[in-house]
This record gives sequence, structure tokens and C-alpha cells, in this order.
Amino acid sequence: MVVQPGAQMAAEMAEQPAVLAAFAARRHEVIARVRQVVSTGPAGIVLIGRGSSDNAAIFGRYVLQMATGVPVSLAAPSLHTLYNAPLRAEGWLAIAVSQSGKTPEIHTVLERFRKAGAVAIAITNDADSPLWHVADAGVALDAGAEQAVPATKTFTAQIAALATIAEALGPVPWTSDDWDALPQTVQTVLDDLDSADQANHLIGEADALFAVGRGLAFAVALEAALKLKETTGILAEGISAADLRHGPIAVVGRTLPVLAYRLPGPTEADLTDLCNMLHARGAPLIDVACDANAALPLPSGLAEALLTIPATVRGQQLALTVTRHRGMDPDSPAGLTKVTFTS
Amino acid sequence: MVVQPGAQMAAEMAEQPAVLAAFAARRHEVIARVRQVVSTGPAGIVLIGRGSSDNAAIFGRYVLQMATGVPVSLAAPSLHTLYNAPLRAEGWLAIAVSQSGKTPEIHTVLERFRKAGAVAIAITNDADSPLWHVADAGVALDAGAEQAVPATKTFTAQIAALATIAEALGPVPWTSDDWDALPQTVQTVLDDLDSADQANHLIGEADALFAVGRGLAFAVALEAALKLKETTGILAEGISAADLRHGPIAVVGRTLPVLAYRLPGPTEADLTDLCNMLHARGAPLIDVACDANAALPLPSGLAEALLTIPATVRGQQLALTVTRHRGMDPDSPAGLTKVTFTS
Repeated sequence: MVVQPGAQMAAEMAEQPAVLAAFAARRHEVIARVRQVVSTGPAGIVLIGRGSSDNAAIFGRYVLQMATGVPVSLAAPSLHTLYNAPLRAEGWLAIAVSQSGKTPEIHTVLERFRKAGAVAIAITNDADSPLWHVADAGVALDAGAEQAVPATKTFTAQIAALATIAEALGPVPWTSDDWDALPQTVQTVLDDLDSADQANHLIGEADALFAVGRGLAFAVALEAALKLKETTGILAEGISAADLRHGPIAVVGRTLPVLAYRLPGPTEADLTDLCNMLHARGAPLIDVACDANAALPLPSGLAEALLTIPATVRGQQLALTVTRHRGMDPDSPAGLTKVTFTS
Repeated sequence: MVVQPGAQMAAEMAEQPAVLAAFAARRHEVIARVRQVVSTGPAGIVLIGRGSSDNAAIFGRYVLQMATGVPVSLAAPSLHTLYNAPLRAEGWLAIAVSQSGKTPEIHTVLERFRKAGAVAIAITNDADSPLWHVADAGVALDAGAEQAVPATKTFTAQIAALATIAEALGPVPWTSDDWDALPQTVQTVLDDLDSADQANHLIGEADALFAVGRGLAFAVALEAALKLKETTGILAEGISAADLRHGPIAVVGRTLPVLAYRLPGPTEADLTDLCNMLHARGAPLIDVACDANAALPLPSGLAEALLTIPATVRGQQLALTVTRHRGMDPDSPAGLTKVTFTS
């Protein structure tokens, strides 16, 4: 039997509607658990993650601030693991995000925040990992074992978990109806592989690319760039639409492809304007939008925050398609292992 | 008279020892001004910037947390300018960084933090800009007019300003001796252009590159990447050494150059280990280190935090040299203007 390259990654991507439906079904349980340990508004919120989990944390930064009004920071792990900087975190909420729960620096940093006075929450796929045992409360992703090196179903489950924690802490711009529609919306995207084939033609043999988004979709752009880097050998840089204008747009000419996330909501006009600028510079443009004419179309109707999940699946499909087209195996990219031991 | 491409950028780079010496001479005045408005330890700290100023803010994140123990966050401007998210910032310190003080989103966000209860500090080159007038206290860079599009002398002055604000707020790992030695150390680097020529040969005709650092040098890597993107047309991505191991290292083979900041201090062993990995993968490696054998050597003796300034100058020299080699003009890159109007 011949196994197609990326068979594992594709199988794990295909599980996402079921994983998300199961998570949505446990949503009220997660909200209650979070409210048990976070009884009043936090003084500050800090998120801890690396790799894909750090991209999920960047999504968390937006939804948690929307819900609480508190500025949200991303931990710089080296301050704790290498510089031994002092830490004051009384009344803070610290949330660590890790697929395996086994990356030492992540649980070291969460433990340090807890000892400094923060309430500690762990989001992980392994409810018996070192990270889980350090936390005051755990949010289990229950995404099932993830074997392929590029994280797919755990990343989208992390987005769902962070959105749910935001719901536990304050008002959010989405409803139960969005949760109900989410699994089918993801399935609709998964069922369309032709668009990714078309987008692959636009990328051609490029060895560099920008993935751009803003606001809630910034994390999606970063995650698409990371998937492409991990699997295809393309140096794909994720960047905010505003930062791209501040200098880096000088790189964009007729050969550098740009993957642009243009989601409906407050950032849409800004992205449309940027896409027009990129088009004028002659860039091969792959837009991801709720628009039948988009290179990678999305179903419409979902609130922007949860639409980031099917938008993420578009990036996964693109990474899988480009990698196969280049004769590589996304399940085991050169030199990568599933758990990374950084200190 | 023939003006060499990049004459303006080179002239502004050459002013850095004098700008830094002048700033160091005003240091105690800046410290006193900051202590007037920040009377007790802040509940939280938030930094606001875009482009080069955002890279300076990332340096600020490290030194301000080292000095205060408070987790430091970087503002996501779109939460304020596009999403109209709620904001609670009583007792917080908000620091905005902007060369011109004229980018609308930066003063809008600083004003919003001030109205939500934060003490507001502005770091800018223009002590009569809209940003200056929004703040409770201003820190003037006094770097003189910057005409070239790529920021050089204002970036290194911003680093000096953020280090000084950290000194105002708590203990820091550098002394007056480091300030005294800084201008001459920068001059020593400026006087050596041969190293940048050699490094340019290592880059060759590459159209993509990683710039890598960790801890205090992470901001330096991001800034080097931004200079290279703005001027050379190379897609240079700045990345932390830890994040590079979490997936993106898959991109590194025999053709992608890596610019690695290996500064003496707690992160040095990690960077040395990473450089060995990159070397084993066959990557063209340009290391910046206090080592006569480094591709871009730095004088030794300066504390790591202030050594980031001469290390930044190495990135500026590389951008200037590569750009001239490619027949482009770094003073006016394609499609860029000095003040960027993002909302």
C-alpha cells in the first residue's frame, strides 16, 4: 500500500469538525471551571506559548482584551528561564498554551507566574502533562493524539479554548449560533481542495512569501506562515497589515506572493485597501475572504472571531498542497521533532 | 557632484556616537522627569509603537520588566482604533515610541490609555508633535532631523531612552561606565566597514534571510530584518532563537543566510548551540559577536543591554552595504514614505 505524503497531516486536519463540535459541547463546563478560579476581574493577563501555541496566544490577546478591557501581554520566556528577572503578578491571570504540555520552558514560566501571585490556567491536549499539574485549572483540548509535526487540530482547538475563556471573563462579539455553525463551516472549507490547488499555481516556485492579516486575523496569518515554513521550505513571514505598510512593503514586487486574510469586520476596509496596493505593485495575491471570487473563499455568516478557524484551515490546506506539489512530506519535515526542548 | 546612494542614511548613521553621548549627558534629567510622573510601581506597563519604534518597544519590554518585575505588554493598536475594545488601565504606565510623533494611530492609542487611567510617556524626536502633547511626560530624543526613510539614529536613541526609563523605575544590569563607553564603542563599529563587505559576500544574491537573536538581542534581530526589508528587497524575517527551533528551522538549508546575534550574557550559550545547528545544516552564517573571528565582530566590555546599540549598527551597515551592492538607493526605497498614516 502506498501512503501519500502528508497522509497523517491530512487525516488530522479532517478531524477538526468533530474536535470542534466536541469542544463546543463542553463549552459551559470550561466556562464554569474558569470562573471558579478567576473570581474577579484580573489585574492583568499574560499568555505563554511557543510556535503554533504562541500564534494561538496572539489570538487570545485580542479576544481576552475585548472581554475584559485589560491589556494582555505575551510572556518573554527568556526573562524567566535565562535572565531570572524579578516578577510581580498578584491578581494577574496567566494562561499557558502547549499542545503536549511537555515543553519545559512553558511549564517553568507558568509555575513562576503562579508563585508570583497569578492564577494559572493550562490549555493543553494532555490532561496528565507536567503543564496540567502546575496549573490552578486546566482546559483539555481533547483533540486526540497529534502525530504529524505541523500542529493542525490542536491549533484550532486552542483558538476555541481561548475564545471560551474570553466568554468566561466578559462580553464577546459572537454567540452560541456561531459555535453551532462552526463545525459545518470548517467541513465546507475542508471539502474544497480545488482552491488550494489554484493558489499553489500562484505561488509557483517562490521561496519567500508574506502572510498578512490584522486584528483577530493577525494570528491566522502568523499560523499560515509557520505552517508554510515548517512544511514547504518557503520563508513565509507572517505580518500585520499595518506593519507591512511601515517599510516591509518595499520587498513586494512582481514575484513575491502575498497571502492576505481579509475577514469581514472592523479590519476589512484596511485589508481591502492593502490588497489594492499589493495588486498595483503586481504581487501574486492570494486573498482569503468571504467572497466567491477570492482565491481561497470562506463561507459567510460566522462572526469574525470564530471565522478565524476556517480561515486557519485554508492555510493548512495551502501548506499541505504546496508541500505535496514540491515532492516533500509534511508529516516529517527535515530536522523537526514534535516536542521542542527549549530552555 | 555625484552623491553616492545611501549618502543620507550613512550620514545619519555616523551621527550616532554624538547623539548617544548627548542623550547620556541628559540621562539624570530624564530619570527625574519620569520619577515625577510615575511615583509608585506601576500596576502594569504597556508599550505602543510601529515599525522600528515597535522593535525598540520590544527591547523596552525586556529592560522594563527587569527593572520593575511587572509583565510588559505591547499594545495591539487595532483593538483601540478599529475594534473599540473596552480598556481598564488604572495605575498602568503607557509608553509610546514614535520617531516623528505624527503617526495618528500611536497618539490615538496613547490618549486612550491615558483616559483609561494610565500615566502616559511619549518618546519622540519631535518635542512639539501631537504625540508629545498627549503625554504626561515626554522624553525627547534630540537626534536631529532624520531624512532617510530607514530609521537609524532615532532607533538607537529610542533604545537609550527606554534603558533610561528602566533605570528610573528600578535596578538594571548596567552602570554609568557602560554609558560612558557607549559612544566610542559605536564609533569603533562604524569605523569598520570591511566586515559588512565580507558579510555581503556571504549573502550573495539571496532573496530571503533569517535574522535571529534572543532576549535583549531579539529586538536587534527584528530591527536588522526590518532594515534589510526596507532597503534591499530581501525578505528578511526576524525571529527568536527559541522560535526558530520550533518549526521554522525547516527552511534553513545551504542557501538561506542567517544573521545571528550572539551577545555575551545569559542567552549566549543558547545562540552558540543554535549557530552549531545552523552550521551543520550548511547555512551561510553571519554571526555578530564579541569575537574577533565573528563575521561582524563587536568590541567587548559593554553590558549586554547597551551592547544592543553597536549590534544594531552592524545591521544598519549590512543593510547599507547590501543595498549599494545591488545598485539600489536606501535613502528612498520603492513606495515608502517617512511618516506612515495607519489607522
